[in-house]
Amino acid sequence: MSNASASHKDMANAIRALAMDAVETAKSGHPGMPMGMADVATVLFTKFLKFDAGAPNWPDRDRFVLSAGHGSMLLYSVLYLAGYPGLTMADLKAFRQLGSKTAGHPEHGHIAGIETTTGPLGQGIANAVGMALAERLLNARHGDKAVDHFTYAIAGDGCLMEGVSQEAISLAGHLKLNKLIVLWDDNAISIDGATSLAESDDQLARFAASHWATARVDGHDAEAIAKAIAAAQKSDRPTLIACKTIIGYGAPTKQGKSSTHGEPLGAEEIKGAREKLGWASAPFEVPEAVLSAWRAAGSRGTEIRKAWEKANAGIAATLSEALSEESLRGVSAAISALKTEWGANPPKLASRQSSQKVLEAIVPAAPALIGGSADLTGSNGTRTKHHTSVTPGDFAGNYIHYGVREHGMAAAMNGMALHGGIVPYGATFLVFTDYCRPSIRLSALMGQRVVYVMTHDSIGLGEDGPTHQPVEHLAALRAIPNLNVFRPADAIEVAECWELALQAKATPSILALTRQTLPALRTGPDFGNMSAKGAYVLAEAGLKRDVTLIATGSEVSLALDAKALLQEKGVSAAVVSMPSWELFAQQPEAYRRDVLGAAPRVAVEAAVGMGWERWIGERGIFVGMQSFGASAPAAKLYEHFGITPRTVADAALKLTVG
Amino acid sequence: MSNASASHKDMANAIRALAMDAVETAKSGHPGMPMGMADVATVLFTKFLKFDAGAPNWPDRDRFVLSAGHGSMLLYSVLYLAGYPGLTMADLKAFRQLGSKTAGHPEHGHIAGIETTTGPLGQGIANAVGMALAERLLNARHGDKAVDHFTYAIAGDGCLMEGVSQEAISLAGHLKLNKLIVLWDDNAISIDGATSLAESDDQLARFAASHWATARVDGHDAEAIAKAIAAAQKSDRPTLIACKTIIGYGAPTKQGKSSTHGEPLGAEEIKGAREKLGWASAPFEVPEAVLSAWRAAGSRGTEIRKAWEKANAGIAATLSEALSEESLRGVSAAISALKTEWGANPPKLASRQSSQKVLEAIVPAAPALIGGSADLTGSNGTRTKHHTSVTPGDFAGNYIHYGVREHGMAAAMNGMALHGGIVPYGATFLVFTDYCRPSIRLSALMGQRVVYVMTHDSIGLGEDGPTHQPVEHLAALRAIPNLNVFRPADAIEVAECWELALQAKATPSILALTRQTLPALRTGPDFGNMSAKGAYVLAEAGLKRDVTLIATGSEVSLALDAKALLQEKGVSAAVVSMPSWELFAQQPEAYRRDVLGAAPRVAVEAAVGMGWERWIGERGIFVGMQSFGASAPAAKLYEHFGITPRTVADAALKLTVG
Repeated sequence: MSNASASHKDMANAIRALAMDAVETAKSGHPGMPMGMADVATVLFTKFLKFDAGAPNWPDRDRFVLSAGHGSMLLYSVLYLAGYPGLTMADLKAFRQLGSKTAGHPEHGHIAGIETTTGPLGQGIANAVGMALAERLLNARHGDKAVDHFTYAIAGDGCLMEGVSQEAISLAGHLKLNKLIVLWDDNAISIDGATSLAESDDQLARFAASHWATARVDGHDAEAIAKAIAAAQKSDRPTLIACKTIIGYGAPTKQGKSSTHGEPLGAEEIKGAREKLGWASAPFEVPEAVLSAWRAAGSRGTEIRKAWEKANAGIAATLSEALSEESLRGVSAAISALKTEWGANPPKLASRQSSQKVLEAIVPAAPALIGGSADLTGSNGTRTKHHTSVTPGDFAGNYIHYGVREHGMAAAMNGMALHGGIVPYGATFLVFTDYCRPSIRLSALMGQRVVYVMTHDSIGLGEDGPTHQPVEHLAALRAIPNLNVFRPADAIEVAECWELALQAKATPSILALTRQTLPALRTGPDFGNMSAKGAYVLAEAGLKRDVTLIATGSEVSLALDAKALLQEKGVSAAVVSMPSWELFAQQPEAYRRDVLGAAPRVAVEAAVGMGWERWIGERGIFVGMQSFGASAPAAKLYEHFGITPRTVADAALKLTVG
Repeated sequence: MSNASASHKDMANAIRALAMDAVETAKSGHPGMPMGMADVATVLFTKFLKFDAGAPNWPDRDRFVLSAGHGSMLLYSVLYLAGYPGLTMADLKAFRQLGSKTAGHPEHGHIAGIETTTGPLGQGIANAVGMALAERLLNARHGDKAVDHFTYAIAGDGCLMEGVSQEAISLAGHLKLNKLIVLWDDNAISIDGATSLAESDDQLARFAASHWATARVDGHDAEAIAKAIAAAQKSDRPTLIACKTIIGYGAPTKQGKSSTHGEPLGAEEIKGAREKLGWASAPFEVPEAVLSAWRAAGSRGTEIRKAWEKANAGIAATLSEALSEESLRGVSAAISALKTEWGANPPKLASRQSSQKVLEAIVPAAPALIGGSADLTGSNGTRTKHHTSVTPGDFAGNYIHYGVREHGMAAAMNGMALHGGIVPYGATFLVFTDYCRPSIRLSALMGQRVVYVMTHDSIGLGEDGPTHQPVEHLAALRAIPNLNVFRPADAIEVAECWELALQAKATPSILALTRQTLPALRTGPDFGNMSAKGAYVLAEAGLKRDVTLIATGSEVSLALDAKALLQEKGVSAAVVSMPSWELFAQQPEAYRRDVLGAAPRVAVEAAVGMGWERWIGERGIFVGMQSFGASAPAAKLYEHFGITPRTVADAALKLTVG
C-alpha cells in the first residue's frame, strides 16, 4: 500500500493527463484507453503488482502485459511515475518520435518494464498465458521461495474478438493457470463505433466455459477493483475481471465515444478535461505529492526483492538466462557425439525423425527446453523419452499439448521466452506457419529464442494434398527480418541446425523438416558445424566447375543424383547445400563467391522460386513449384511437378551446352 | 424422407465401408471421422438436406460444408451414394491418387457438391458463416421464393479449438444467422490422444455465450439426430448440435481411439468391422437396395428444384454468377469516367482515399458487391454513401462490420464468394494480412473472386510503429500462387486495379493502399487500363535510356523525383510503375524486355527486397527496407531508412557512372 499522501484520484489523473498531453504533442496516438483504464492501472500498480521499479528485471516480479498495446501511454505513464530507470519526462514528450523509447506501441527492449511488444491485438493476452505457464513450470522446479508471481494483462474488446484470444483462454483454463489475471477494459467502444455493431458475446460466460473465474466491476471504483483483484489472487483458476470503463474518461464532450480512441483530443477538449478531472497542473507536470506517492509505490517491493535475492542467489541466473553456457556446451557435446555416430553409421531418416533423435540427445543437457506440439506430436517427432506431459495444475512435466491451436502456441512460446528461464520449442506442419504467422513475426521483432519445428515441409508430404503442402511458405518466412529459416538436408544437418537454433540468443528459428525419408549425405568424421555458414559446397566439381547446383533440404540428394547424371555427359557439377539463406547472406562476400562459383547455376527446391534469383542470378534456372501442390503419393508428385534429378540435369545442360 | 427400402443402419454402414476400403486401398487417409459421423451424415442427407444430386449447382440448394476436411471419404461416399454426376466407384478407388477427383482433402471444383476446400481446421465453419450470411443477404434482396436455404457444417474438435472458429461463431451469433446449423463431431479424440490432453471447454456454454441455440445428442441415434436438426431449423439463432460419437465406429479393437484418426485400419480390423457392423458386401460394393435408397434420397429434391427453377427463371443467373457482364460494363464505365475526371483534375489523395472514391463510383453499378472492414472502416475507406450496415437479423444492408476479426472476415468472404451471387471485399491494415493468411491462401487455391483492401501498406503509416508497418508482407503475398497483389501508385492506378480485381473471376486480389497522401502521376486523357499489363513505362528516358527506375505504389513518385535529380547530372532515366508483379509476369517476353530495358536497373519499394532480383537482375540495386520499421512520422521514416529520391538517384549513378 502506498503510504505517501496523494489520493487515488490524483494518482490516476496523473496517467490521464500525461496520456492526453503526450498524444497531443505527438499529434497522433490513443488517449481514450489510458484515460479509461487509469483507475485500474493505478490500483494494480500501487496495491498489488509485486515489483521494484529500481530493479525491473528481478526474476520473481509480477509480469504486467498491456495487451491493448495502442494504450501505450498508459504503460509509459505508469513506468515513468513509478520510477523505472532510464525513462524521463523528456521521453514522454518524445512520444512516437524517431529514436524515442516511447514508440507508438510498446516495444520490448525500449524500456525495462515493457514485458512484451504489443499492438497486434490478442497477442498480449496469449503472451501472458505463456508467461503464467512459464511461472508455474519454474515454480514446479524451484519452489515457492524462488518463483511465485502473478501475471496480469490488460485486454481490450479487440483482444477478445481476435481468435487467438480464444486459443489462449481455452489453454489457460484447461491448464488451471491460476496466477493469471486478465483485466478487461470493458468500454464497449471499438473503432467503427459501439462494439454492438459487430459483437454481442457474453464474455463472462465465454471465459467461464473455459473454466475461468470471472468478476465484473466498475472500472472507476478503486475499492471494487481492489476487491476483485484480491479475490482473483486466491482463485484456483485464471480470472477475468471485466472492468466497466468509460473510454476517454474525463474528456468533457468526447468521453465514451470512439473519437477518443485513436486521435488527439484537441486543445479545447484537453482544457475541459483538466477542469472536469480537477487536474490543475500544466502539461507534462506532475505535482510533487502525486509523483512521490507514485515513486513510493514503485519502491514498495524493494525489501521483498532484496530478501528474495539473498535467498535465491544461487539460481537467479537460471531463472532469467534460460540456456546457460554450460547447457549450450552440453548441447554441443551431445550433437557432436551424434554427428560422429551418424558419420560412421549413416542413417536413413526423415528429417523430422532425425530431429527427434537430436532431441533425445540434447534434452537432458538443456533442462530449460520446454517442448510441445499443436496436436501433431507423433508426426512432428517433438516428444522424447525424457518428456512428461504438463497436465492441469501439475507443472512438473516438460512437454505441452497445445491442442489444435498453432497461433496460441506460438504466442504462448513468445511469452515463455520473454518470461525467462525457458527456451520453448513447438511444432506443427510447415503449411500451418500461416496460422501462427503474427506471432512468428513478433518472435523476430522482439528477438526471442523460440524454435519452431515445422515438419511436412513440401509436396513430399504427399496424399494430404495442396491444403497441407507448403509451397510459398519458405519464401514467406525468409521474407521476415531476423528469422532464421533452416531446411536441413540430412540427419547431420538437422543436428547442426538445432545447435544453431539454440545458440541464436536473439533470433527465432524455423526448422523445416521432411515427412519423407532422406538419405545420409554427410559421412565420415565431424569437422564442425558446416551449416553455420548457411551454405557450403557439399560435393566438389573436381578440377573445373561447369555448373553449380544449389539445393536445400530434401532436394539436396536430388541435386547429387543430378550431378551423377551430368557426369555421364561430361559435365562437372558442384553441389551446394544451403540450409539457411539468412546465415549465408551474413558471410563475407569472398566466401559467398567461392561457394556459388562463377559457373552457371541451377537451384532446386520443392517450393516456389521467389527470391532464388538472388543466388542463381539472371542466367540461372530454378527448378521447383509454379503452383499449389496436389494429392498423391510423394514420389508421384515430384515426378508430376518436374522436380527430379533429370529435370535438374537438363536445366544444367541447357546452361552449359552451347 | 427416403422411400426406398433400406435401413438407416445399412445406409450409414455404406459410408463406413467405403471409407474404410478407400483408405485401405490408398494406404493413407482418415477412416475414423467418416465412420463416426456416418449416422449424422445419413440423417442429414436423407431427411433434411435440400438438394438435387442431378442438379448440384441449383442456387437455392442447402449448403453442406465438411469443416473437418480430413474426413473427406465421408463426403465422397455420400456424394457417390446420392448420385452426384461425374463421381464413380472408380473415383473412390482412386482416393488420394494423382489426378483423382477424390483428393486427400475435399478440393472445391473437383466434384460438384464440394462446396468449399477444407482441411486447414476451422476454415470450413467460418466459410459456412459466410455462406449463411450470403443466403440471408440474397434472401433480403430476392425474397423467400428465390432464396431460402440452410447451411450445414460438420466440425470436429480441432475446428472448435482453432481461434478462427471463435471469430466465426461470435459473428454468426451476433448477426443471428439462424439458418446456420453446425453439427459437432464430439468424439473427444484428437491426434495426440484424448482431447482432454489439451482441452476441457464446455462447448455448449461457449456457443451459448455467443447467442447460439445448442443441443446435445447421441450421434449414433438417428431419431435423436433428426429431432435436433428439426428443432434447429426452427430456431431464431444459429444452432450447434453436439453429436456424441465414437471415432472409428464399428472397428472392433480400434474404435474410440486416436489410432483410427489418420491411418488405414488394416485388413484384419476391417474384416472385424464388417462383422461387427453386419456389413457383408465386398470392398467397394454397395448392395442394390442400399444404393437405390441413397439414390432416392439424392433425387428427393428434384421436384422442388424444378418448381423453383420455373418460379425463378429470371434471377437464377444473378444468384449464381455474382457480377454479370452488365455489372462489369457498368463498373468499367464508372471507372473510365473517374479516370477522365482525374486526368483533367489531378487529385492529391492517399490511395486508400482514392479507393473510397472508386467505390463511391462503382458500388451502384455492382449490387453484388458486399463491403466490410475488420473494425477499421474509416481508416480503410471501405464505406460509401451507398452503404448501409447489416445488423442482427436485418440483411437489407450491404456493409458488414466484421469486428476485430480479420481471419473470420477473410474466411467468411470465401464462403460468400463460394455461395454465389456476391462479390465480397473486406479490409484491414496490410500488416494484418498475417492474421488472415490461411484464408487468403484458400481464396487463391479455390480461385475465388475476393477483394482484400489492405491499407497502411508500408512504413508510410508512420507513428504506430513496427508492429503495424508491413515490410515483408508484399513479398509474402506475392509468393502465393494465383493471387494478384496490386500496389497502385496514384488515384488513376487505384481505379485501374479495382477494375482488374473485379474482372478476375478466378483470382483473389490484394489492393495494397497507402495511409499517406500521394501526388497524381497520370494526367491527361484516359488511354485504357495501363495497369492491366502489370508494369509500364510511366516516364520515358528520352532518346537514350541510361537507367531504369522501377517502383510500386507510394515509391513511384519518389522514382520520378529521382529521375529529375539524375537529369541534373545528365543521366537519362526511365521510370517504370509496376502495380502488379503477377500481371507483368504474364506478359509476352518482348513486352517485358521493352519495359525493363537493357540499361541497368534500380528498384525502389518501401519493403524488403525479396524477389526483386527477378526484375533488376544481378547488377541491379534495390532501395528499400532491410529490417523492421520504427515509430515516427512517415516522412522521417523514409529519411531514416534511406528511401528517398536522393538514395535512388545515388544508386542509379553508381550503376551508370564508370
